Amino acid sequence: MNSFGRRFVMTTFGESHGPAIGCVLDGVPAGLEIDEAFIQAQMDRRRPGQNAYATARKEADKVEILSGVFEGKSTGTPMAMVIYNTNQKSKDYGNIKDLFRPGHADFTYWQKYGIRDYRGGGRSSARETAARVAAGAVAKLMLKKMGITVRSGIFKIGDIAGETVDFDHAPKSEIFALDPSVETAQKRAVLEAKEAHDSIGGAALVRVDGLPAGLGEPIYYKLDAVLADAMMGINAVKGVEIGEGTHSAELLGSQNNDEMTKEGFATHHHGGTLGGISSGDRLDIKVYFKPTPSIFKPMRTLDIHGRETTCELKGRHDPCVAIRGSVVAEAMAALVVADMLLLNMGRKMEDLRRYYQRGV
Amino acid sequence: MNSFGRRFVMTTFGESHGPAIGCVLDGVPAGLEIDEAFIQAQMDRRRPGQNAYATARKEADKVEILSGVFEGKSTGTPMAMVIYNTNQKSKDYGNIKDLFRPGHADFTYWQKYGIRDYRGGGRSSARETAARVAAGAVAKLMLKKMGITVRSGIFKIGDIAGETVDFDHAPKSEIFALDPSVETAQKRAVLEAKEAHDSIGGAALVRVDGLPAGLGEPIYYKLDAVLADAMMGINAVKGVEIGEGTHSAELLGSQNNDEMTKEGFATHHHGGTLGGISSGDRLDIKVYFKPTPSIFKPMRTLDIHGRETTCELKGRHDPCVAIRGSVVAEAMAALVVADMLLLNMGRKMEDLRRYYQRGV
Amino acid sequence: MNSFGRRFVMTTFGESHGPAIGCVLDGVPAGLEIDEAFIQAQMDRRRPGQNAYATARKEADKVEILSGVFEGKSTGTPMAMVIYNTNQKSKDYGNIKDLFRPGHADFTYWQKYGIRDYRGGGRSSARETAARVAAGAVAKLMLKKMGITVRSGIFKIGDIAGETVDFDHAPKSEIFALDPSVETAQKRAVLEAKEAHDSIGGAALVRVDGLPAGLGEPIYYKLDAVLADAMMGINAVKGVEIGEGTHSAELLGSQNNDEMTKEGFATHHHGGTLGGISSGDRLDIKVYFKPTPSIFKPMRTLDIHGRETTCELKGRHDPCVAIRGSVVAEAMAALVVADMLLLNMGRKMEDLRRYYQRGV
Amino acid sequence: MNSFGRRFVMTTFGESHGPAIGCVLDGVPAGLEIDEAFIQAQMDRRRPGQNAYATARKEADKVEILSGVFEGKSTGTPMAMVIYNTNQKSKDYGNIKDLFRPGHADFTYWQKYGIRDYRGGGRSSARETAARVAAGAVAKLMLKKMGITVRSGIFKIGDIAGETVDFDHAPKSEIFALDPSVETAQKRAVLEAKEAHDSIGGAALVRVDGLPAGLGEPIYYKLDAVLADAMMGINAVKGVEIGEGTHSAELLGSQNNDEMTKEGFATHHHGGTLGGISSGDRLDIKVYFKPTPSIFKPMRTLDIHGRETTCELKGRHDPCVAIRGSVVAEAMAALVVADMLLLNMGRKMEDLRRYYQRGV
Repeated sequence: MNSFGRRFVMTTFGESHGPAIGCVLDGVPAGLEIDEAFIQAQMDRRRPGQNAYATARKEADKVEILSGVFEGKSTGTPMAMVIYNTNQKSKDYGNIKDLFRPGHADFTYWQKYGIRDYRGGGRSSARETAARVAAGAVAKLMLKKMGITVRSGIFKIGDIAGETVDFDHAPKSEIFALDPSVETAQKRAVLEAKEAHDSIGGAALVRVDGLPAGLGEPIYYKLDAVLADAMMGINAVKGVEIGEGTHSAELLGSQNNDEMTKEGFATHHHGGTLGGISSGDRLDIKVYFKPTPSIFKPMRTLDIHGRETTCELKGRHDPCVAIRGSVVAEAMAALVVADMLLLNMGRKMEDLRRYYQRGV
Repeated sequence: MNSFGRRFVMTTFGESHGPAIGCVLDGVPAGLEIDEAFIQAQMDRRRPGQNAYATARKEADKVEILSGVFEGKSTGTPMAMVIYNTNQKSKDYGNIKDLFRPGHADFTYWQKYGIRDYRGGGRSSARETAARVAAGAVAKLMLKKMGITVRSGIFKIGDIAGETVDFDHAPKSEIFALDPSVETAQKRAVLEAKEAHDSIGGAALVRVDGLPAGLGEPIYYKLDAVLADAMMGINAVKGVEIGEGTHSAELLGSQNNDEMTKEGFATHHHGGTLGGISSGDRLDIKVYFKPTPSIFKPMRTLDIHGRETTCELKGRHDPCVAIRGSVVAEAMAALVVADMLLLNMGRKMEDLRRYYQRGV
Repeated sequence: MNSFGRRFVMTTFGESHGPAIGCVLDGVPAGLEIDEAFIQAQMDRRRPGQNAYATARKEADKVEILSGVFEGKSTGTPMAMVIYNTNQKSKDYGNIKDLFRPGHADFTYWQKYGIRDYRGGGRSSARETAARVAAGAVAKLMLKKMGITVRSGIFKIGDIAGETVDFDHAPKSEIFALDPSVETAQKRAVLEAKEAHDSIGGAALVRVDGLPAGLGEPIYYKLDAVLADAMMGINAVKGVEIGEGTHSAELLGSQNNDEMTKEGFATHHHGGTLGGISSGDRLDIKVYFKPTPSIFKPMRTLDIHGRETTCELKGRHDPCVAIRGSVVAEAMAALVVADMLLLNMGRKMEDLRRYYQRGV
Repeated sequence: MNSFGRRFVMTTFGESHGPAIGCVLDGVPAGLEIDEAFIQAQMDRRRPGQNAYATARKEADKVEILSGVFEGKSTGTPMAMVIYNTNQKSKDYGNIKDLFRPGHADFTYWQKYGIRDYRGGGRSSARETAARVAAGAVAKLMLKKMGITVRSGIFKIGDIAGETVDFDHAPKSEIFALDPSVETAQKRAVLEAKEAHDSIGGAALVRVDGLPAGLGEPIYYKLDAVLADAMMGINAVKGVEIGEGTHSAELLGSQNNDEMTKEGFATHHHGGTLGGISSGDRLDIKVYFKPTPSIFKPMRTLDIHGRETTCELKGRHDPCVAIRGSVVAEAMAALVVADMLLLNMGRKMEDLRRYYQRGV
């Protein structure tokens, strides 16, 4: 239950304040060049402590590869990657040891397991997502070889939504903004929330280009369904849309259908999947993050003994988790696509026959 | 890839115009009374041909149980359920044999498999969802014994959204409307679309009450993530929300956090899951359906030879798939909850010890 | 838990005296010609009632395909196959309704589920294996296209073991004997056991030829391990060997190692797998069946109330389950190989790149 | 494919000469005391370099727990355990870099992946089994709390088989001998093989006591089938038996059936499973290991260019892998039982109802 994927399988482990977090990535095809600098660069995009729009915690987030790579290439065996925790301030959490932070998983983990590592959320901390970014980076290395790109950015902070989408701008923006024309307003919204000891929600767009048609396994491992699973499973995500998304419910069929011509789809409402299978059109996924539950205002809550109390947080927290979360969403999309590429290989008898005949 | 669930596992089969559709349901605990009339009643809720708001196709949708039940009770062995197709009009599809209906899976199945059963969409037809409702009905029988209820209804048709939610009204409504005050307007919107040879989108709310806290398997089989998978995998669904959903991205942390008191959660923004685990609060899932892609207006498309052509549909289609789709969403939610109840049983060492010691 | 395989997945259902048994086969590549006569011919090999060496029960074992095939070819969607039970004599089981037949699963099913379909063993009956043979026949159709053959036969009945292996003779033999020189003695042993109201054990050899090197997924889905799982899971099987098997424990390394030359392996002790991966050499699996537990001699046992009693069986039973069981073992081997062929397709990055580039 | 189990899931990683090997253990119930000394003691049983009957390689095999444990107890989250490789002598392997050692997986890995870490077998090395022993030790901690014991020992070396079984003696024996009366002869056989630059096969018996009846998931996750998978997947294993095993094929039903009385089973031919479900009787599994393929005699083989050559090994190798392998077999059995205990929890509706009602 700590594994994701069927053929390209990531298993993660680790708590925010334990010795390390990490993952085992199983199913990486043999012979892929493992560019460690690229993996580290992906980690750095998610890494906290880099500007005013993220938590001030500093984590080196240095990835060590323990297996699966020989002379710079994947061997087809599992790649274990470990990230040691270096900047743990467990004492920050002493005052919340026995209470449930509103909006956090403290209460539910307690209910489920009867024990919890209260330091920084333990396993439920978004720190776990660093392992996903490492695994996603390997997926991206694989996709690159196939001419597939996965990109992401922020299109909305609070109620400030962009109109245009510029994936070249996003990486240069401190908040990964997709629309430069609203970036200043979006930054201001984040800082205002932060100054008010509050936090703010936001939303990311993930786009996959270069995807072949035919990916996705109907009926219960559809491309869009697995993407929904991947996205909703990211900390703080509460809504997922493919293509036109929730807005499609407001449309007529004649408005929402995408006609086909020799040049491809005339419009892009479907967002890249039809019947849960990739259409070859660009894949558009929108991911909505709630505001960080960790705020510096007093909140009513319960403690583990069932008594009412007040939660007053200290520590360092992201004022808007959507920003760093967008990098995680991108990583998850890359993992899903890598998995689907592998799963799809036996779809036709003719493929199978040729594969073994040709010694491919 | 045609199976859903880990411990309470549904495997479906069948094409819309083949001999039969059906499912094998594995993991039903032994000793559950199998009320066949209840199962059939659930089928009847989804069954077409009952009023002006659904397709005129008539399907008996009679479920036959082939295994897994002995003297009225489940035996713990797989339950196979078959629904024979009785009202197939394959000739309706002759004119679309070689072309790809816009908005449908025709193109993507062709790309993937190089072959397709063009009669009514074959496997990609929403007819397959009848098997899900049969399986979901067994899940509901199980949940009933646990005091858990799963209900659904329509809260939005096109841009007409209700304000209130009345789950007692929905079953009595021909469009499963949750808000009686907008029901007439919603019905009119469906009929207007139908008369214009068009279709219209809509959205359903699924609510689960009575859920114990602690369900959901972090990090990659979270309750909310699996629900998102379950919902996005339903034909025509393009958006899924838990609790406050996409709207949470517009809120501040102080607005979105749900404080806790001895009486429970003070507000319900979180929608029943925290950290992907059930909180014991009611579970709210919103499911957004695009308008039926089958409309009776000419649309530009391609044929299987890559030539541009025009798609002109005949036959009988739902003007608004969200309506019957809401019953499917409810069934899927029931399947997810049944699975999570079983998966959760080994969460604590103490539980395990007691389970075997007491001979429970 | 009623499914077998990861990519070529068989799910079976059904009880010996329920309405039907059957299976859903998921993962069949699209475009495979489905030769129904071939499938039926495989069923007929396992079918009882054909001679003195098998039970006198007559089952038509007629397979009906409900889905997944269109115009004679697989479509890539699940194939459901049903075999209706036609020769049920439930009254034969009236006298054992409340007691546990020694050597059978009556006691363990009762312990596990607290309920059992006592008619003919219900789900635990070897009748379930008919569904495996149907699924295995589809696997064999697929393997045929790849130049892979799977054959089986009996090499031992009681302590009468053959010296030679003649797979051309076995299909012609009423007991599927591999060595014609001991066939008469083996037949006599079966009839003697039968006349003594007893039963006798036996062992089958399954051989796969034409297997490409490289199949099997280390470390935990190795070809030999999955074959062991497949074989040990067949009713009455108590021992499984690959290649030299248990005898290898008696050898020195210099005796057991197979040297390699340009002509291939000099000897065949390894039985076709090294490190759990196929070597390209023939695959040899030996499967040992215990004697049918159903004998017509009185045996001491308990009833469901815990009282001591005597079990006196009526009805019709195989005097030697190994004989018909060998057909099941062959089917299981075919299923394993089909699964491994599909799983193996993404092993190298270069393969993946070419697969999508060439549009294979 | 590097994961084992369904609810108690071990995923291993690592190569013999890479930085580390290890595992992630998912599904450990929360609240289990994690006795690190016990885990290390299990590691020490498998650890090489301790006497003349094992390889002279010295590995510290020190386990570091990276996650899943808080204040001495399991938290229900994944336990990552790492064993750093400390005694790598890669230069020992220089002369075999380009050739395939007979009896090893060199050839098959090369065929499958087109790349191999030739140092000590890389991933295919039995060194990987150290990770299994670590995971199995946690399983044993869990089973201890349930009153279940898993023990193992050697009953056969070459053709020297014991008659009696003394599990108290085995841990004290340098070769884990079960029968003290043949121990000296068995030891001599090992040393003779070693002195002759050869190796020798052997066989282990694993016994599980205290198992409740009802474990095992029919039809395709039966207890005996999964044990066969677990055992056959261990390096060098070529045969697996449950209870009477291959010998059952030589018996009559009246000899092989175990009658039942109020005192339990009168005999123990069935070996603890009936219909693939535990009977509550002791579980007996026999595991047959081929002789170590690494011997110091020249052997004909091929190199990676397809040329014939001679393999002349250096380095340090176990003269009889069965000895240390028996500890691995024991660990695998413990993992299987732990998995089955968890899977079995939802077998009866009544159990489920009580579980949640009582707040167990």
